[in-house]
Amino acid sequence: MEKVFVDLGAASYEIFIGKDIMDGVKKFLTGKSLLVTQKNIFDLCDVNFTDEIAFIPDGETSKSLFEAEKLYTRAIEAGLDRKSVIIALGGGVVGDLAGFVAATFMRGINLIQIPTTLLAQVDSSVGGKTAVNHALGKNLIGAFHQPKAVFIDLNFLKTLPEREIKSGLGEIVKYGVISDEKFFSYLEDNADKILQRDLNILAQIVKHSCEIKAKVVSADEKESGLRRILNFGHTLAHAIEEQTGYKKFRHGEAVAIGIMAAALISCELGKTSAENVNRIESLLKKFDMMTNCAGLDADKLYSVTFRDKKTVGGVVNWVLMRDFGSVEVSSDVPENIIKKVFRRLCNGN
Amino acid sequence: MEKVFVDLGAASYEIFIGKDIMDGVKKFLTGKSLLVTQKNIFDLCDVNFTDEIAFIPDGETSKSLFEAEKLYTRAIEAGLDRKSVIIALGGGVVGDLAGFVAATFMRGINLIQIPTTLLAQVDSSVGGKTAVNHALGKNLIGAFHQPKAVFIDLNFLKTLPEREIKSGLGEIVKYGVISDEKFFSYLEDNADKILQRDLNILAQIVKHSCEIKAKVVSADEKESGLRRILNFGHTLAHAIEEQTGYKKFRHGEAVAIGIMAAALISCELGKTSAENVNRIESLLKKFDMMTNCAGLDADKLYSVTFRDKKTVGGVVNWVLMRDFGSVEVSSDVPENIIKKVFRRLCNGN
Repeated sequence: MEKVFVDLGAASYEIFIGKDIMDGVKKFLTGKSLLVTQKNIFDLCDVNFTDEIAFIPDGETSKSLFEAEKLYTRAIEAGLDRKSVIIALGGGVVGDLAGFVAATFMRGINLIQIPTTLLAQVDSSVGGKTAVNHALGKNLIGAFHQPKAVFIDLNFLKTLPEREIKSGLGEIVKYGVISDEKFFSYLEDNADKILQRDLNILAQIVKHSCEIKAKVVSADEKESGLRRILNFGHTLAHAIEEQTGYKKFRHGEAVAIGIMAAALISCELGKTSAENVNRIESLLKKFDMMTNCAGLDADKLYSVTFRDKKTVGGVVNWVLMRDFGSVEVSSDVPENIIKKVFRRLCNGN
Repeated sequence: MEKVFVDLGAASYEIFIGKDIMDGVKKFLTGKSLLVTQKNIFDLCDVNFTDEIAFIPDGETSKSLFEAEKLYTRAIEAGLDRKSVIIALGGGVVGDLAGFVAATFMRGINLIQIPTTLLAQVDSSVGGKTAVNHALGKNLIGAFHQPKAVFIDLNFLKTLPEREIKSGLGEIVKYGVISDEKFFSYLEDNADKILQRDLNILAQIVKHSCEIKAKVVSADEKESGLRRILNFGHTLAHAIEEQTGYKKFRHGEAVAIGIMAAALISCELGKTSAENVNRIESLLKKFDMMTNCAGLDADKLYSVTFRDKKTVGGVVNWVLMRDFGSVEVSSDVPENIIKKVFRRLCNGN
């Protein structure tokens, strides 16, 4: 079993990565517990460590105040108190919703994350972001609430649908860019084994991704500065997702296209080399991921980009690439450069 | 103008106390702002420092996820972003609801509290507790979210209904017990002036109450230990409020009776003197407050007490008095002592 420590002072915690590790949850149960999950995920597991189980419906629509309120009711009826624990077993939807309920039930109770998708394992389960959606936008209601522990059981990756693996790979390529050239090369060298779901290779990749995220989150828990670099590729990704109603692209698929946008803009500005852009594009293609958003409207994407939640005072903070392991945040990218790159991606090349 | 500093590291803030001080809010407006208030309170003020105003209905029922969701919508429609500010102008209901929305909108934006009742000025506006109610219980959904500043304008006390003043005095007598004998004597010596709403005296009392609360909150922001002493008198108070459907007693009125319960239990256990109990009872009577809950059912109060939100694993943490300025938390008060005191208070003596 691998471990990654997330250093946040009194709120520090460990990420456990391995196979058949879920029994470890037991020692974090400080009181009564409520497991929040989905039926199809629960059926894959042999869970014997919780008092109560609440099933939520599949799909992004479960990330709502409506479902949160049902979970509060379950928690109260089950007699949960301030020492109780909420366990989130599932992908990003389960983690975000159950995390938000844990953050706000009795002003915050303990949370254990057991992410079951590659995306949740390398991204949403670590770092304490929780949220539900508002009718007018995604993740607009939420809280920072760090888990007490994260259990990443790699066995879940064996039965994960192909597209879910790819969605996770979008974020992993992002880590490859913001981390260092060595990790990016490792991804290039092991692309085939990754797609074959070699759990030993995946263990290393998940671990390293968590290490990068842990390091960034430790330095900037509430995203006032450094944490923004985790948004590399996310500026266009959010716009693509919003413009397509969150239906056409999985999050990591949109991130892959967003990574291309950020790399191309960086290249247009002379910040990074065409060779770096090519390496990124080649790796995404090795993973059989889309590297453009042919068919979407570049002008619409542009205007949606400037209405994103992370827009502060109308300013978009682009995360740009200098080299592997070297990124910077810039808010003054010329409109013509952004539009040129968006048009290129919408034209399919 | 008086100032009280709440020392919470990076989350530290100041409480400003005085007359005609609301203009000071302006320098805390880091971006767009949304004022949350009630119509009748707004009409008392000359507000010229906010971009948007949202009115919420009067009454405890406004502390709901339903009203929170309406405020999220207003915030989004008004274009609030992560640098924006929510200003809570009102009593505890406004502060708790607007505070919860500030805590959870975009995972937390800035909050300014302008408490307009004596109770909110000495208690709920300081310390970062925010909450809404659930159909099954009060304050069950919430978050700790410290304000960026608290503006206590004493002018509001001039037009406050009599019962609202008394409700605040319940908490102030509590501070008299947990703080020190000197402050308790000051309350005894100035009881008449307080009831006449002498703003100079009230300024001192509000300031000292905030100082005590600030000190306790600084030491234990999230109520894991010391902060519990602020619950002196609250164990029975919560049970009284719940049993009477939050209709018969204002919060501070229930606290006054709860203070009597805590003092009497302390005396029965030999922890404090009958003289101390008498002094507390006399002061509450000087303030024309009820010191018993004649007519309520002692057995029911007992069972409700052990179902309180602050009950962890069926254990009730009583805050007991040794002397003025000296309290202790105890979870092993014998049932017969609690019942004896509850019966005495329910019998009206």
